[in-house]
Amino acid sequence: MNTWMLGLVMVWLAAANVKSQEIQVPEAEGFDAASVPAYQGEHVSVYAYIDENLEAHLSHLVRWVRQKSISAQNVGVQAMARLLASDLESLGFSEVALVASAGHPGVWGYYDAEAEKTLVIYMMYDVQPVNPEDWQVDPFAGEVVDHPLGKVLMARAATNQKGPERAFLNALASIIAVEGTLPVNLMVLAEGEEELGSPNFPEIVDGYAERLRTADGVFFPFNSQTPSGDVSLFLGVKGTVYFELEANGAASGGPANAEIHGSYKAIADAPAWRLVQALASLTTDDGNVIEVPGYYDAIRPPSEEEVWIFNGTVAGWQRREAGVCEGFGIAEWIDGISGRTSLATLTFGTTLNIDGIWGGYTGEGVKTILPHKATAKLDSRLVPNQTPDEALRLIRAHLDANGFDDIVLRKISGYPPAQTSVDTPLVRAVLGVFNKHGSIPSVSVRIAGSAPYYVFTDLGLPLIAAGLGLGAGAHAPNEFMVIEPVAGSRVAGLAEVEKFYVDLLYALAAAR
Amino acid sequence: MNTWMLGLVMVWLAAANVKSQEIQVPEAEGFDAASVPAYQGEHVSVYAYIDENLEAHLSHLVRWVRQKSISAQNVGVQAMARLLASDLESLGFSEVALVASAGHPGVWGYYDAEAEKTLVIYMMYDVQPVNPEDWQVDPFAGEVVDHPLGKVLMARAATNQKGPERAFLNALASIIAVEGTLPVNLMVLAEGEEELGSPNFPEIVDGYAERLRTADGVFFPFNSQTPSGDVSLFLGVKGTVYFELEANGAASGGPANAEIHGSYKAIADAPAWRLVQALASLTTDDGNVIEVPGYYDAIRPPSEEEVWIFNGTVAGWQRREAGVCEGFGIAEWIDGISGRTSLATLTFGTTLNIDGIWGGYTGEGVKTILPHKATAKLDSRLVPNQTPDEALRLIRAHLDANGFDDIVLRKISGYPPAQTSVDTPLVRAVLGVFNKHGSIPSVSVRIAGSAPYYVFTDLGLPLIAAGLGLGAGAHAPNEFMVIEPVAGSRVAGLAEVEKFYVDLLYALAAAR
Repeated sequence: MNTWMLGLVMVWLAAANVKSQEIQVPEAEGFDAASVPAYQGEHVSVYAYIDENLEAHLSHLVRWVRQKSISAQNVGVQAMARLLASDLESLGFSEVALVASAGHPGVWGYYDAEAEKTLVIYMMYDVQPVNPEDWQVDPFAGEVVDHPLGKVLMARAATNQKGPERAFLNALASIIAVEGTLPVNLMVLAEGEEELGSPNFPEIVDGYAERLRTADGVFFPFNSQTPSGDVSLFLGVKGTVYFELEANGAASGGPANAEIHGSYKAIADAPAWRLVQALASLTTDDGNVIEVPGYYDAIRPPSEEEVWIFNGTVAGWQRREAGVCEGFGIAEWIDGISGRTSLATLTFGTTLNIDGIWGGYTGEGVKTILPHKATAKLDSRLVPNQTPDEALRLIRAHLDANGFDDIVLRKISGYPPAQTSVDTPLVRAVLGVFNKHGSIPSVSVRIAGSAPYYVFTDLGLPLIAAGLGLGAGAHAPNEFMVIEPVAGSRVAGLAEVEKFYVDLLYALAAAR
Repeated sequence: MNTWMLGLVMVWLAAANVKSQEIQVPEAEGFDAASVPAYQGEHVSVYAYIDENLEAHLSHLVRWVRQKSISAQNVGVQAMARLLASDLESLGFSEVALVASAGHPGVWGYYDAEAEKTLVIYMMYDVQPVNPEDWQVDPFAGEVVDHPLGKVLMARAATNQKGPERAFLNALASIIAVEGTLPVNLMVLAEGEEELGSPNFPEIVDGYAERLRTADGVFFPFNSQTPSGDVSLFLGVKGTVYFELEANGAASGGPANAEIHGSYKAIADAPAWRLVQALASLTTDDGNVIEVPGYYDAIRPPSEEEVWIFNGTVAGWQRREAGVCEGFGIAEWIDGISGRTSLATLTFGTTLNIDGIWGGYTGEGVKTILPHKATAKLDSRLVPNQTPDEALRLIRAHLDANGFDDIVLRKISGYPPAQTSVDTPLVRAVLGVFNKHGSIPSVSVRIAGSAPYYVFTDLGLPLIAAGLGLGAGAHAPNEFMVIEPVAGSRVAGLAEVEKFYVDLLYALAAAR
């Protein structure tokens, strides 16, 4: 335990055997990031360089989002890897390499600043697929458009993740242009399969594990601001397991090879009904509580640090919550929960989600068939101490125990969660720089989403995703990043986003 | 009751409150079509004309299947209506008209033979959609290919229904060419929306109702043979109701406008889960018994004639059953039923079938979203005395009673069943002609599929779908009709199919 931490009697209300997704965490004094001293450095010449070159810096973001890199569809992925490598070379990285893997390549880069400290930059260069008909712009045109928040770059990957990543490289370019070199050494390790669940990133990290272990931490450039200008910072990520359930005639009865005329339902088994019934057995009627025996059992209660940090974030969440709901078009959360309860459930809860389902005739009008196959894609977000394989073992056992041994379960990808302590030089530097910029972060236990951070945290490295800046629409239509906020906004524009990254590298160099 | 019918104590085992799809009908003496005297007429000159012009006759079938007419997608439908009308004009129909409706047009034709009897010919000129990748030929190329059964025309609509329909017109052309006119007057009434559930055919029939009532019956040209050469004849059709169930964020909670990041499943309701749970509530785990209260209640027991006829068909079904299963790639029917039980269930049972289901991401690989909408297409086959509206009322009431009032139910189409008695001049003529051709039919109570025959039977007309000939793959890939059977086959080729229709018109003219 560190000097910041308060003694705290933690009560984990739901205990080890959670039966509901609604999670309660006891109310107590919370962590306050304002207690961390603000960073004092001023790098005026570098800031001026950024302001003078802002148009060129924006054009680098545009260049990146225009390069498609849809990992799920293998569109443009190789070209994006080469583009990233080429940009690192241009910046003066002494080592740049495409790292072959069983899937899309990684990208490695090393910048030798002959500095005492070394920071690892984790990057993802792949993007989610798009449904162009749902977008107000061509998702790969890289257009700057007007938005209630200001001028924004609207494009796939504008915020997830090319926008903040290329802004970070702009910051590096500015320091190097003004000062000749960087205040810390950098190891860049990028992957092109984050949106696929990072199936090959562990192998890519393995090849550099000994060098990575010598670093002081891992940083992921990330737009951390909300529309009000508040900053959310996450010390962890959930794990994930992504899988398919399929019913087909060969296994479930019914037609094995092709659809048949629907009238034969009178005497023919139907794979589509079997899939529906098997899926339905996994949750309560509202779809919100997982009815797989033991599914919640492994989950450990929040640690003392987690409870302390959680209690420091409730007020910020309560301010932002209505806006989050509105942005999603959601009238209210599950069971009408809000505030502490919704935040605790989002932070500490596991999930079972249907990402997609399909089978039979899905076009317009009428086609009367009995489909020979039906499939669903599902994912579960994993919290400590859940693991992908144990989650799937429990689901398989539940299906078998309920007579659904005909249902095919295919694992697509998965990895465990990761957690970083607030008590590390990297996190303290990040907090100090935020405080300097007037954005005292709400530091959260973890983000509800997933990233393969375990590959770094399992090497003993702290990892944090942070940055000024705001974006929205990750994995959704009309994704954007704010470039030039409206007057009076507390949201950072591209220039301040880059200055934050400049300060961070100097703050880390100075941190003890 | 007619002179053929035996007194029979009918026991309807499942009684009025059927709780299982397995239906039992008491064993008793069955109807035997061999008891009907064979038709004695010989129309040698017409038969010779058919044989001499067979290549040209086949080219008419090819011309029809090449003309796409996918009603669900509105592809080629108008052109097919004009093609049919033009062919009727060429044959000498004195009245030919396209009949406007709220949907695709009907086609009316009247051939005045100045004859005593008048036969209505029901036709459908639309076809099911195709998945070309599942076909071994272009489904609209109209190719004659080799098949274990002989040379077959493989194309969408080859057997359902353009093949037998155009073969019937070839028979008319042959009679007219040789004899100058037909032995009966004909009223042709065709629709282009059969595959959509015939939403506008009642309106089309209404316009001709008074003239139709003056006819002696309705005939639907139909390939009635099985691969062994046996003939199945159906005295009725089931009704159908086709509908969609949809869960969306606006009604069910969760995102209202677009998908959101899947990690929010922790606190967001999910329409896809709601659809799955609502669907699952409709059936038992095996998908085979409808758990909607009252759904089986309206079904009337089989009539005395139906039980008599059913018992006459069991042996034929038992011979064909294994082949039907094999053709479908089905190892066994529901619960391993067979013989009397599977035939009774197929004949007298209602159904609830998932035709299609979709929502969220259905492409390759991983996309982690919480979809804002999920939809399923379902159909139910209706037996006497079920009605589409009552079926949907019961489903709606069941959903509401189980808390699924958020699920949207959209009726797409529906119509009631229809039934014809074996004791009519038309049916007796059909049976007599089959007996002349050495194919004593297995006469069934009804086909498991649906057609809007009620629009005719409700006018007091008997209706029968019949013909020599064999096809398979209706509503499925690689649909075909046999044109030239392999040597030794009892299946009729195109020439004999046409000769059957010639004989039928003369037999009806002579029937009392």
